[in-house]
Amino acid sequence: MTLPDNAKIMSPQQLRQRIRTGQHTGNTSGYSEGYVQCNMVILPKDWANDFLQFCQANPKPCPLIAMGQPGEFNLADLGIDIDVRSDIPSYRIFRDGEFSEEVTDISDHWQDDLVVFMLGCSFSFEEALQADGLEVRNVTEGCNVPMYRTNIDCKPAGRFSGTTVVSMRPFKAADAIRAVQICTRFPSVHGAPIHLGDPSQIGISDINTTDFGDAVTINEGELPVFWACGVTPQVALEQAKPPFCITHSPGCMLVTDLPNSRLAVM
Amino acid sequence: MTLPDNAKIMSPQQLRQRIRTGQHTGNTSGYSEGYVQCNMVILPKDWANDFLQFCQANPKPCPLIAMGQPGEFNLADLGIDIDVRSDIPSYRIFRDGEFSEEVTDISDHWQDDLVVFMLGCSFSFEEALQADGLEVRNVTEGCNVPMYRTNIDCKPAGRFSGTTVVSMRPFKAADAIRAVQICTRFPSVHGAPIHLGDPSQIGISDINTTDFGDAVTINEGELPVFWACGVTPQVALEQAKPPFCITHSPGCMLVTDLPNSRLAVM
Repeated sequence: MTLPDNAKIMSPQQLRQRIRTGQHTGNTSGYSEGYVQCNMVILPKDWANDFLQFCQANPKPCPLIAMGQPGEFNLADLGIDIDVRSDIPSYRIFRDGEFSEEVTDISDHWQDDLVVFMLGCSFSFEEALQADGLEVRNVTEGCNVPMYRTNIDCKPAGRFSGTTVVSMRPFKAADAIRAVQICTRFPSVHGAPIHLGDPSQIGISDINTTDFGDAVTINEGELPVFWACGVTPQVALEQAKPPFCITHSPGCMLVTDLPNSRLAVM
Repeated sequence: MTLPDNAKIMSPQQLRQRIRTGQHTGNTSGYSEGYVQCNMVILPKDWANDFLQFCQANPKPCPLIAMGQPGEFNLADLGIDIDVRSDIPSYRIFRDGEFSEEVTDISDHWQDDLVVFMLGCSFSFEEALQADGLEVRNVTEGCNVPMYRTNIDCKPAGRFSGTTVVSMRPFKAADAIRAVQICTRFPSVHGAPIHLGDPSQIGISDINTTDFGDAVTINEGELPVFWACGVTPQVALEQAKPPFCITHSPGCMLVTDLPNSRLAVM
């Protein structure tokens, strides 16, 4: 992936404006360095309470950063002049739990009973790891982070349930310890890892075969380190089959005006 | 080890008084729950600066909690009416780096040029781990923590150098991650672990053969987790061979009036 020269330094407002006017399409990874990017889920009002409870019960895979009122598409807490219907490069629409279509604007699909959820994304903690000098393998290898289904049950809430999906980044032991310390500061972007070492202990039979994303190199002497992953709520949504649901397309996030440091709890 | 009923709730002042008057002898582990216990090193003034630099350069194995002026045996910051010459149950005297004798009072050995160093001890973080519900294996098995020499060099300082000694406690991965989080709050009692997983990566050839302390059970699915250990400065002292040195005897610590929580950085 080659980014334009000004990708990192582009302000979130500028980037959202470019997305809204169709000048930017696709992935937001690497853009507007230092700012929180969010996973998005939109559900009808009568499904929203169940989903809110699911997030509340499973904060590591589903760290809720913001939630709108029914019909609200401007989440003012996240940035100036945000319109979630047009400020994300690509959206996926699901009907009865089945993927229906991918679109670049959802204004035509908007309904007054829709509730927007914004969830933390691993981009924030990957940036914190790199700022500390750690190598994030999927960044180095220019691919998607490897993700796996596990045998770790989410706490069911209302109509939502499922198992936890994890992302994996390999580190030497001392760096894994440092990664725990760094990520602990950021509970709203998945927080500390939930497992490290033997993948079979969490139900992953082959570390080289991912369920989502791409496999990365694990060097001799490195431990796989596993984080709860934002794909978890998507899997729960597919199982719950709400009649209507909109999410961002993978890698195409809402870029907010919140500095990543604002998410640090200490 | 069976403790008297009132061991945990005995105040540090009470315990020190009992030690000073010979009513308490031996180990202080399990006494005066919630209070910082310290490793002690006493060196002549002309060796003290080198040792101070060694502690400064190697804060994880040698976390300095307090240091006296030459000749000072009352460390008022650590508690009321402390006299380090009599308030520790057992002392070891070294001459030219060789163990010379074990005594229960060092008043007769006191010299006006002696400098007292108090270093943090793992009792504090073991208490924090247990308070969080984690099982500390050496406590469960009622033995000394297993300790190993490693290939991790300390930063040399003046006449002091050596390799790091580590203590080991086994945990399941999720508990190991929690242990990193808990111990990170306590940098002055060795802080976060420095390694976990494969012992051979830090030069330990057989986890069942300890260099100090006792081996403990490592259950299926547990990772050995390694902390920098307060035996490290003792090894450095043996190598540096100062003409005169006094330490506490293993397990026989100075029990201070500082609550363990006072050591938490966040």
